[in-house]
Amino acid sequence: MSTLLRLSCPDRVGLLALISNFIAQHGGNLIEVHQYTDAAAGWFFTRMEIDTRTLKVDLPKLREEFTPVATELGAEWTIRTAEAKRKVIVMVSKFGHCLADLLWRWHSGELDIEIAAVISNHEDFRPMVEREGLEFCHVPVDPHDKPAAFAKIAEIFRFVQPDLIVLARYMQILPAEVCAEFSGRVLNIHHSFLPSFVGANPYQRAWQRGVKLIGATCHYVTSELDAGPIVDQEVIRVEHFHTPEDLMRLGRDCERLALARSVRWHLDDRVLLHGQRAIVFRD
Amino acid sequence: MSTLLRLSCPDRVGLLALISNFIAQHGGNLIEVHQYTDAAAGWFFTRMEIDTRTLKVDLPKLREEFTPVATELGAEWTIRTAEAKRKVIVMVSKFGHCLADLLWRWHSGELDIEIAAVISNHEDFRPMVEREGLEFCHVPVDPHDKPAAFAKIAEIFRFVQPDLIVLARYMQILPAEVCAEFSGRVLNIHHSFLPSFVGANPYQRAWQRGVKLIGATCHYVTSELDAGPIVDQEVIRVEHFHTPEDLMRLGRDCERLALARSVRWHLDDRVLLHGQRAIVFRD
Amino acid sequence: MSTLLRLSCPDRVGLLALISNFIAQHGGNLIEVHQYTDAAAGWFFTRMEIDTRTLKVDLPKLREEFTPVATELGAEWTIRTAEAKRKVIVMVSKFGHCLADLLWRWHSGELDIEIAAVISNHEDFRPMVEREGLEFCHVPVDPHDKPAAFAKIAEIFRFVQPDLIVLARYMQILPAEVCAEFSGRVLNIHHSFLPSFVGANPYQRAWQRGVKLIGATCHYVTSELDAGPIVDQEVIRVEHFHTPEDLMRLGRDCERLALARSVRWHLDDRVLLHGQRAIVFRD
Amino acid sequence: MSTLLRLSCPDRVGLLALISNFIAQHGGNLIEVHQYTDAAAGWFFTRMEIDTRTLKVDLPKLREEFTPVATELGAEWTIRTAEAKRKVIVMVSKFGHCLADLLWRWHSGELDIEIAAVISNHEDFRPMVEREGLEFCHVPVDPHDKPAAFAKIAEIFRFVQPDLIVLARYMQILPAEVCAEFSGRVLNIHHSFLPSFVGANPYQRAWQRGVKLIGATCHYVTSELDAGPIVDQEVIRVEHFHTPEDLMRLGRDCERLALARSVRWHLDDRVLLHGQRAIVFRD
Repeated sequence: MSTLLRLSCPDRVGLLALISNFIAQHGGNLIEVHQYTDAAAGWFFTRMEIDTRTLKVDLPKLREEFTPVATELGAEWTIRTAEAKRKVIVMVSKFGHCLADLLWRWHSGELDIEIAAVISNHEDFRPMVEREGLEFCHVPVDPHDKPAAFAKIAEIFRFVQPDLIVLARYMQILPAEVCAEFSGRVLNIHHSFLPSFVGANPYQRAWQRGVKLIGATCHYVTSELDAGPIVDQEVIRVEHFHTPEDLMRLGRDCERLALARSVRWHLDDRVLLHGQRAIVFRD
Repeated sequence: MSTLLRLSCPDRVGLLALISNFIAQHGGNLIEVHQYTDAAAGWFFTRMEIDTRTLKVDLPKLREEFTPVATELGAEWTIRTAEAKRKVIVMVSKFGHCLADLLWRWHSGELDIEIAAVISNHEDFRPMVEREGLEFCHVPVDPHDKPAAFAKIAEIFRFVQPDLIVLARYMQILPAEVCAEFSGRVLNIHHSFLPSFVGANPYQRAWQRGVKLIGATCHYVTSELDAGPIVDQEVIRVEHFHTPEDLMRLGRDCERLALARSVRWHLDDRVLLHGQRAIVFRD
Repeated sequence: MSTLLRLSCPDRVGLLALISNFIAQHGGNLIEVHQYTDAAAGWFFTRMEIDTRTLKVDLPKLREEFTPVATELGAEWTIRTAEAKRKVIVMVSKFGHCLADLLWRWHSGELDIEIAAVISNHEDFRPMVEREGLEFCHVPVDPHDKPAAFAKIAEIFRFVQPDLIVLARYMQILPAEVCAEFSGRVLNIHHSFLPSFVGANPYQRAWQRGVKLIGATCHYVTSELDAGPIVDQEVIRVEHFHTPEDLMRLGRDCERLALARSVRWHLDDRVLLHGQRAIVFRD
Repeated sequence: MSTLLRLSCPDRVGLLALISNFIAQHGGNLIEVHQYTDAAAGWFFTRMEIDTRTLKVDLPKLREEFTPVATELGAEWTIRTAEAKRKVIVMVSKFGHCLADLLWRWHSGELDIEIAAVISNHEDFRPMVEREGLEFCHVPVDPHDKPAAFAKIAEIFRFVQPDLIVLARYMQILPAEVCAEFSGRVLNIHHSFLPSFVGANPYQRAWQRGVKLIGATCHYVTSELDAGPIVDQEVIRVEHFHTPEDLMRLGRDCERLALARSVRWHLDDRVLLHGQRAIVFRD
């Protein structure tokens, strides 16, 4: 049983002492502490994992007492129970390897989450999703009326209130206002080592360029295409004899790994954002 | 003692049989054979290493007899003795790690080459070069008269007739006509995993973008900046806490490895070029 | 449509010419050729992929004509059509990640094989297998009468005549006579980078030893535990903060990758064995 | 300017608060904090980097005031100025690549250390060391009187009082009593990914075993051969065509990287030892 505190704020002297004192005063034993100071930006980031059983107050009370402290620091922060199941929406189009990978990690208990829904613009993966007892929402995207589709999708988002939306090779671009509304909660897996090959057909372009490494990048979605903060990247060596189809095949394994790790870290409150950079306290 | 045949030509049926027969007819025992067919381009590439002692003819005779065969195929080709020392010119500016690495590999016998000269636009590395008994040429590049410097440099190239020119963090851009004249013989080490961060300050830009992998790329120099065929790339994981200076430090190791391997493969006749792609028969 | 020739034999002059001539004489266009000579052992290995449509004879005739050639060379060899579906048996105990991974690669068409049966000493994965329309065989292994179980398993093997048997975290040790009967056709995934941590509990032992890299090894099964020829290995960095449970989690991804690649290469006739070493013509 | 505190002690509630408070009370601004609790062992580890200019007391006073705090915790600890040059002794036999690599990193300023002496049982590298203006000590090891040599070596150690002794491919085994006297201050680079191939000729044995990855391991020297705490490991893929000589060549790059990083981390007080495990707060 553990309680997770995540916080970022302008840097100043004594921040770690102040916060760790606050926790010690409430009896909390620290299991794991991460701290990072971005000297250039003058910003402080921390994540603390507290043994819940040692705390002398309950979660609402802890939050209440921490609020004036955090306010004084000008901090963005969350405190929550690690055991609270986190709600995830997965979006997919016609490539199912990332979806299948997430389903297996959830099915086997490696990812201890609630998959609230899988949304797709195609019907292909309905059987794969429904046989797991999960909700599959088919939301076709009419090229002549995309706003209608995305209005429906945003409604689902608002209804579910997910902790994370995963674009698991969802080949549509979310409208800027949806990106803004769910900012910091939408992860995309891009099939190149960004910033190389932003946009469409990265494997084909990687082949043409003759690169010797291909990869995948998991990043937060922002209104600028493939430019949001990067959480993780994975690469694999390729050689001249690999065709573009080989690159797609090899790249799928990179995509699955980079996505699965990023999802885990996001849901574990291990990622803090600051501008275009993601602070990732990896496990 | 071995003899190296390297050849590329339009693909057709029976090429490998034809060439391996030619060698067998001259008594040659094949030690190592690489072959690759680019199906899309319809092009055939091979490298054959022949046990010289088994050949019934000497090198000039072998070349003479192979000429009509190759001409008929419309091939680009070379046949040479592996033991012939290969001549290399190294160019450097103010960052010496790649130069130092190449010098050590040469000094220790790992790279069995002749370093004909080290050319620099600065005097910094004269002692490091001269204490190895090697020629150091200081060719300053006056920003107001670059053509004069590059005329001098091209003269050195023409005099030495090197098998390879290595831009070991030489921060100047070679003029297009020099690139053209020594096409396929100039390797550059770029301090990013291309095509990311073409041009200046890649580590600074990698830091700003928040990438989780940095790297280095060794490629042939063409008249288009950082766009020539890629021979090798190397990457290393980085995290949010690495400063741009850390990236430079970590990147240096990537640069040295990617460059050293590429130099080895080029000099070993393991690289064949076709458009923007490098066929690399790695060892 | 392609035809695969795989051959190993004692080395001698002109082998590649001899074989590629044979193919050229039958009109065969070579798509891909791999060759390797183990100079120490004096042994020659090759794999040739031939464009079937260019061959002037059918497969039985090609084999018939090649037989005297191969016999004269003292060769072990196979010629087969790449398109012939290959039969695979998967064996599993209580850890399902490798099975799930293989099922997905098969389901999605990445692995174009026939999974003839999944055999397990437990019932856990029956639903996962049967929902794919595949045969699940529960063969319990009574610790007091293991021979009975393995007699039954060997019978299934003999009935199916699989091209490959995959021990996908099957925690039982096959008896020596079964290993011998199906020699060169049984792949095991071991959860350490062999030869480190042969035997049980490798992750726990890796943690105790404080290694900074963990891994997985896919090897052919022989009568000596974890000592058969290695096809592929995969590693991942770990740090002091990773618990043995973290190592198990991270290791699962290594296991899946090393196994999936090895299965692919085996079925593609890309692996040739010689003593304790596996020649792997990777793709 | 920064001050480094490194501490390990039995775990208890409030440790981080206690220590960070102590520093805050002395005005210290924390630049970087690492913390790790080994739950199984019940042990706490921390490293704190403090902005020296913010401290209201000087180093001796800080140590004096921290002493009773640390004593009460039963802690092992050090506090020192990051800028104090650290003294290193390098030992080498006949393979110079690790020595050359360390010399370059020192020469170029990447490693900001004092190389007090290079000790060798051979004369080979005297010129390479002396041309850098460094002390070279030739201490031959007579196989019939090893104790005499190691007595002399231990004397040099005692005279220099180095912060680190680097066995940079020093092919002799230090006697147990020297290991004990300089415990935690002697790093060795072993040319395999331990615990594989403990002892002699690891590359030859790796080749025979047919592994697909080779590597190097940097570990602290203890009286048990190749069994001390591991600081870092590095691996590289190899294939069937690599000879034992190729493995040696490729392994050299692994050795240099693993050693250079470990040396850096040790000297930066980033390594804390606990039994057979090394806690490494990497940078």
